[in-house]
Amino acid sequence: MTDLLKTLKDIVGDAHVLAEGDLTAWEQDWRKRSRGKALAVVRPRTTQEVADVVRACAAAGTSIVPQGGNTGLVGGSVPDESGTQVLLSLTRMNTVRNIDPANLTITVEAGCVLQSLQDTAQEAGFLFPLSLAAEGSCTIGGNLSTNAGGTQVLRYGNTRDLCLGLEVVTAQGEIWEGLSGLRKDNTGYDLRDLFIGSEGTLGIITAATMKLYPLPAATLTAWAAVPSLEDAVKLLGLAQKHLASSLTGFEVMGQFALSLVAKHFTQMRIPLYKDVPYCVLLENADSESELHARTQFERLLETALEEGCVTDAVVAENLAQAHQLWHIRESIPLAQAEEGLNIKHDISVAVSRIPQYCRETDALLAQEIPGVRMVNFGHLGDGNLHYNVQAPVGGDAAQFLRDYEERVNTIVYDQVHKHGGSISAEHGVGSIKVDKVPNYKSPVAVEMMRAVKRALDPRGTLNPGRVVRL
Amino acid sequence: MTDLLKTLKDIVGDAHVLAEGDLTAWEQDWRKRSRGKALAVVRPRTTQEVADVVRACAAAGTSIVPQGGNTGLVGGSVPDESGTQVLLSLTRMNTVRNIDPANLTITVEAGCVLQSLQDTAQEAGFLFPLSLAAEGSCTIGGNLSTNAGGTQVLRYGNTRDLCLGLEVVTAQGEIWEGLSGLRKDNTGYDLRDLFIGSEGTLGIITAATMKLYPLPAATLTAWAAVPSLEDAVKLLGLAQKHLASSLTGFEVMGQFALSLVAKHFTQMRIPLYKDVPYCVLLENADSESELHARTQFERLLETALEEGCVTDAVVAENLAQAHQLWHIRESIPLAQAEEGLNIKHDISVAVSRIPQYCRETDALLAQEIPGVRMVNFGHLGDGNLHYNVQAPVGGDAAQFLRDYEERVNTIVYDQVHKHGGSISAEHGVGSIKVDKVPNYKSPVAVEMMRAVKRALDPRGTLNPGRVVRL
Repeated sequence: MTDLLKTLKDIVGDAHVLAEGDLTAWEQDWRKRSRGKALAVVRPRTTQEVADVVRACAAAGTSIVPQGGNTGLVGGSVPDESGTQVLLSLTRMNTVRNIDPANLTITVEAGCVLQSLQDTAQEAGFLFPLSLAAEGSCTIGGNLSTNAGGTQVLRYGNTRDLCLGLEVVTAQGEIWEGLSGLRKDNTGYDLRDLFIGSEGTLGIITAATMKLYPLPAATLTAWAAVPSLEDAVKLLGLAQKHLASSLTGFEVMGQFALSLVAKHFTQMRIPLYKDVPYCVLLENADSESELHARTQFERLLETALEEGCVTDAVVAENLAQAHQLWHIRESIPLAQAEEGLNIKHDISVAVSRIPQYCRETDALLAQEIPGVRMVNFGHLGDGNLHYNVQAPVGGDAAQFLRDYEERVNTIVYDQVHKHGGSISAEHGVGSIKVDKVPNYKSPVAVEMMRAVKRALDPRGTLNPGRVVRL
Repeated sequence: MTDLLKTLKDIVGDAHVLAEGDLTAWEQDWRKRSRGKALAVVRPRTTQEVADVVRACAAAGTSIVPQGGNTGLVGGSVPDESGTQVLLSLTRMNTVRNIDPANLTITVEAGCVLQSLQDTAQEAGFLFPLSLAAEGSCTIGGNLSTNAGGTQVLRYGNTRDLCLGLEVVTAQGEIWEGLSGLRKDNTGYDLRDLFIGSEGTLGIITAATMKLYPLPAATLTAWAAVPSLEDAVKLLGLAQKHLASSLTGFEVMGQFALSLVAKHFTQMRIPLYKDVPYCVLLENADSESELHARTQFERLLETALEEGCVTDAVVAENLAQAHQLWHIRESIPLAQAEEGLNIKHDISVAVSRIPQYCRETDALLAQEIPGVRMVNFGHLGDGNLHYNVQAPVGGDAAQFLRDYEERVNTIVYDQVHKHGGSISAEHGVGSIKVDKVPNYKSPVAVEMMRAVKRALDPRGTLNPGRVVRL
């Protein structure tokens, strides 16, 4: 092992191989649910250094856990407890290599923080639309390796849809130069999408060419009270018809989720939620003007009021108000944490199935756990709910988790499966769900995943035990 | 072999195993450039029949060539000349299984003809946006297996981007039930995109869940004269800024290409092309109204005229005029055929590189072949040019092809490679380009493709010798 450490120091420099001291920042995940022990934290600066590190580790029979901003939610980017894995941190690879305005592309290294990528794009006069809660610390490499979602998927797709090309270090330590800025290329298998979402188990993404978009002329936010989830789905259909791809956000929030925000963040003023089971936050990014955006929004909401799928609505008058509305939405997870430990889910079903899914599953959970409270919110526009389960009032939350987490997960996931949905819509598999996925996925698909893993990483060098077990 | 034929007849019925008579429709490709001989043409009706056919063939050591509408352009869907391959035609599998309006999805079998899919969507009040010249006879299964492009990629992406889930029969004859209508699902490797574009070499796509979109309120077409390709690129940037995703088409056409249409289809009136090297056809699909679409178009064209990247422009006054403009664009390949045999290409480079690519390559070809004529047109909005090469005036076209095809291809492809482009933007690899691709693709990528092929089809049952050679 000391031989390997010496080799790694020769490759990246002594200062960038950390084997002593407090390595918690790399060894523990953001939610403090997974904690491991690395042989060393290695921080390369170049693609060639990554390739050399992989070759050295593969030769030594040492496995590698790649890591970006370490903000993942499924324990996919921390080492196991063996003390034998190399934690490969990509954060020093954070150069913006190129912006091509006429091609609407930007080429960046994996360690670029998402927010700095957004800022760089904006300074160049463009939008990079990926947006999610961890954007201040997550990296684009991590976003790609987990195919991150977020709040604008409805319009711009997942991270996968924003990527045109990749540079990847393979499990053999070779460099695939796939940094294409092409929107059309049919010269073989889609290797790019194979690496995206593979959570570092098939190769290490070191750089990517991402799509840019023209900045919208105006972005407006509205808040609507809806009498039911069926009405929320109906409102979504109207919004897609009226606003087409100007509709960039459609978030649903249950009354109890909003009441937790009101309870724990008393300074926040939450509109319209007291008399309806759900509110919806809509965002309209218009290429023309603020006036046009407002007119379009008003027409949509008038139609929705007439058709009865909205009982009341407000449109933010200015940017500050818009930020306040988004801030309410984004405060739900924090308010929920204030209320106490809870059982989180990240599920998706077809949009058309959401009302029935929730009705059935709410009832099953209420039957199983009298008084259970549902914190239901999420990206309704793409069928993704954070369907979280909170202990009954006054209960001991820790005890609740011990008693019910497995049973609640089983009920929720069985229901998802019954409705043809996904038990991990945007967070990925990592180590937390690796043994759950095979219960809910086609055995044919699981076997194909194993075959692909064996084909590209036959020695199991890269992030073993994550995504799929061999 | 007679044993296998008997087994196949037991599976799909005697009437659907064709081993005698004229099988040209299945054995010869659309452009009559590839002609093979099948052991038999087998026409299953169900996914289970496909699976049974694959198992029977695999057991007999017989390879399978899947085929949809047989409109491919790279010889990927016809059998080889050995007389030993089974041609598996999917055209009897043409049921629309489901439309889900609230989820904006349609689930169809592989043999559905693209145009009937468009029509079915429209009757249900939605748009299925994939659109290409062969839409009257190509099938969605073929579109998926080749990741077809077409004229609306700029807005809606390639076929890949329109697909949410697949049903696939594997090389082992197992059925992968992956017909998800989910917009977010991060439970493992992206197998869907691995099958899309793999041209039937990794599995046989039997059904798919595809995205639908709201029908636009109005679709307008404009025609602009541009002084140079640089100006065309500048106009594209302005159009993307002004129209955002309402811009659904941006086709560029060189003066010589248009002059061939004028020469061979004398009834067609072609606007504005006589004084400029290029014309651009723009399409604007507006979610609001025809008035709004027209106002937006006029604002864009005024700005473009002011900035000098457009010298003159017309907006179609009605649908008939719009169809006429598109008809001019679509007549270029036919006019070119009338003019005589020519050397076709289907290339892409970054949009920003197109002017320099064309300038350099035009000069290299003119130097190589004095008097050579460039028929340059294509989907500039996504960097895809059909950069075709016509013999000098009065030359013997057949002789020209014999003398120059290889040299012209080498010049064009070397230039594409130099500019980081693709030698097959939308048509695929098939048999025609399978030995060219490795010259222009990263060896690391080619080796990964081989590894994936070996992993999923270790016996080489599916469409051997296409896309990648083992």
